[in-house]
Amino acid sequence: MKINEHYSELGGNYLFAEMKRKTAEFQRLNPDADIIKLGIGDVTLPLTPAVIEAMHRAVDEMGSASSFRGYGPEQGYDFLIDSIIRHEYESRGIKIKRNEIFVSDGSKCDVANIQEIFSTSCTAAICDPVYPVYRDSNIMAGRKIILLPCTRENDFVPELPQKPVDIVYLCSPNNPTGKTLTRNDLTRWVNWAHEKHAIILFDSAYSAYIRDPELPGSIYEIPGAEEVAIEFKSFSKTAGFTGLRCAFTVVPEAAGTLNAMWNRRHCTKFNGVSYIIQRAAEAVYSDTGRRETTALIDYYMENAAIIRNGLRNAGFKVHGGENAPYIWWELPEGLDSMNFSTKLLESCRVVGTPGIGFGSCGEGFFRLTAFGNRAHAIEAVSRIRELKIDRIP
Amino acid sequence: MKINEHYSELGGNYLFAEMKRKTAEFQRLNPDADIIKLGIGDVTLPLTPAVIEAMHRAVDEMGSASSFRGYGPEQGYDFLIDSIIRHEYESRGIKIKRNEIFVSDGSKCDVANIQEIFSTSCTAAICDPVYPVYRDSNIMAGRKIILLPCTRENDFVPELPQKPVDIVYLCSPNNPTGKTLTRNDLTRWVNWAHEKHAIILFDSAYSAYIRDPELPGSIYEIPGAEEVAIEFKSFSKTAGFTGLRCAFTVVPEAAGTLNAMWNRRHCTKFNGVSYIIQRAAEAVYSDTGRRETTALIDYYMENAAIIRNGLRNAGFKVHGGENAPYIWWELPEGLDSMNFSTKLLESCRVVGTPGIGFGSCGEGFFRLTAFGNRAHAIEAVSRIRELKIDRIP
Repeated sequence: MKINEHYSELGGNYLFAEMKRKTAEFQRLNPDADIIKLGIGDVTLPLTPAVIEAMHRAVDEMGSASSFRGYGPEQGYDFLIDSIIRHEYESRGIKIKRNEIFVSDGSKCDVANIQEIFSTSCTAAICDPVYPVYRDSNIMAGRKIILLPCTRENDFVPELPQKPVDIVYLCSPNNPTGKTLTRNDLTRWVNWAHEKHAIILFDSAYSAYIRDPELPGSIYEIPGAEEVAIEFKSFSKTAGFTGLRCAFTVVPEAAGTLNAMWNRRHCTKFNGVSYIIQRAAEAVYSDTGRRETTALIDYYMENAAIIRNGLRNAGFKVHGGENAPYIWWELPEGLDSMNFSTKLLESCRVVGTPGIGFGSCGEGFFRLTAFGNRAHAIEAVSRIRELKIDRIP
Repeated sequence: MKINEHYSELGGNYLFAEMKRKTAEFQRLNPDADIIKLGIGDVTLPLTPAVIEAMHRAVDEMGSASSFRGYGPEQGYDFLIDSIIRHEYESRGIKIKRNEIFVSDGSKCDVANIQEIFSTSCTAAICDPVYPVYRDSNIMAGRKIILLPCTRENDFVPELPQKPVDIVYLCSPNNPTGKTLTRNDLTRWVNWAHEKHAIILFDSAYSAYIRDPELPGSIYEIPGAEEVAIEFKSFSKTAGFTGLRCAFTVVPEAAGTLNAMWNRRHCTKFNGVSYIIQRAAEAVYSDTGRRETTALIDYYMENAAIIRNGLRNAGFKVHGGENAPYIWWELPEGLDSMNFSTKLLESCRVVGTPGIGFGSCGEGFFRLTAFGNRAHAIEAVSRIRELKIDRIP
């Protein structure tokens, strides 16, 4: 049987699944342990009333012959696309057309699938550490990968590749480092892409967490980006949709044939997002929805501040957590992040994600997320304060 | 820019999108025309009360902190997987394990994505005519394709390939021909796959439409199929979920490494189906849900009988429509199916799908679907009866 031979080049289990398994095993052996999960980036607050109401209405529509909807447009309904354009782009002074937006069931799917429209002979540049999906989807396709180290030395900002590169994945606010790229950083990348005829795949799933108004919330705030960049945004972290599944990708017409190619891919291999879920996403942009969503994000960012400041006050060195829901904990020299995850689970009953899982430059770091509830954030900090490991001087 | 060069080998617009455009253009030019759409295979009856109730309950759960659900298992929730096993497999005397079922957002996605776990050096066999997604997804990957003609000469049953083939797509009940493969047909294919170390990709999305108890509703009814076949089933046509998006794929452990590979693919590039939609799918299998679903299918199959018999009585030759929701209309000699679609639209205001859109062996045929409402089925037949074209003697 001729299987896809590239799968053998993939690492073991997908990182988050592996951490889930490890935690479940610990819980099984310690049924009374009160484990605080700050590992997977999953939200915990319920969906907001505006979203819930919109879904009830849409469910009722689906139960009546006169308002039932079958297959929708693969690219998404105009009511949602128009709301996205208005609130994500016009609000930032960016012009995006309807046919440049592709609604999907998740940014994970989109960032995994986007590589298909590029040649397998492309070289892909990805950051290290990195959200594993960029790496794994390119390995599966047999594409050559170049790593861009993001370390404390370069303040977690990747440097321009020295070797030829065709596509580059950038994520800002970054998962896992919590770093957000500045206008200058992005301008350097956009200019580089123009010069090298490369394409930037810009994962902007966490842009709602940016607090500093000087930081760009879309790559299209950079002049010329529309010719060299594809952008991914999601409702998962913006509005707590991880269990609903809705996101969107922007492929500008100015990027040439890529718009038509992604449209062909989307129409051939995807059949649109559930009508009910698209109505839920539309409700996020209503006046009430926006107020409620802001409150959700404020809540999580207050968690981020508690974790960030709590760890700092406990003598640890932490990055991120200011314009991103991720805290990138720098471990004392010599501490292995995999072993540390076990130690943290056993000593503090706190689950996080070992940096090594995101790439070799993630070694020596540990990711905590702000998506838990307030009491857990406070309690986790209080337990970690007692942790018997060295502090970084 | 190094794009995926294989996209240039694809045909023009995706067939259904093209037909939609053509119909919309006609409607624009003839705003008063009462067009009956029997083209795209989209259901028209609303979701049943059991499904609607289940979704309202699930929506409420998502609005409360104590019952909110974020990311679910990529493979689907056990409550749904267990219902699928019980009602789709145990009921047919087939043993399927939980880890062999992969819930997804649609069979279109699954049949498009499955090729990824096979080498691009594989040769894929697809029927002609065929649901275009099998063909297009393999062209996009640069795979070699062999066509298996399904014509009136072989009663629309594909013959075993004479050349080496690694994967073969079979669809039964068939889209577009309406042909359903018998136990003997499938046994011949399963034996062939064993002998040639090939894999059968069995699209069974329409199995709920089988009326003849002798016809297999799952390929796993054939001994040994679990070692050589992957099966796709969907809630779209079974329970009217085209606008909800839910389906599942079965990859048996007995098929060797394919189970682990598909699991890796699913976990890396997909993030699970919306919780609300999975609760809707579960409700399809409740006692009430099954009664309601049977009624839906009976309704559509009565449409199929009306169209099938109506056209026959009008002197036309038709295939399918007995154990499938598709009627495969054999056009009089010399009639081009593309031109015929225009004629049918202009003379009868009836939209169908030209056979050529499904492959060159589809030329001379025209697909009608039974998914419209009763009045439309009757009215379409009445209009077609007056159609001024030759009848087949």
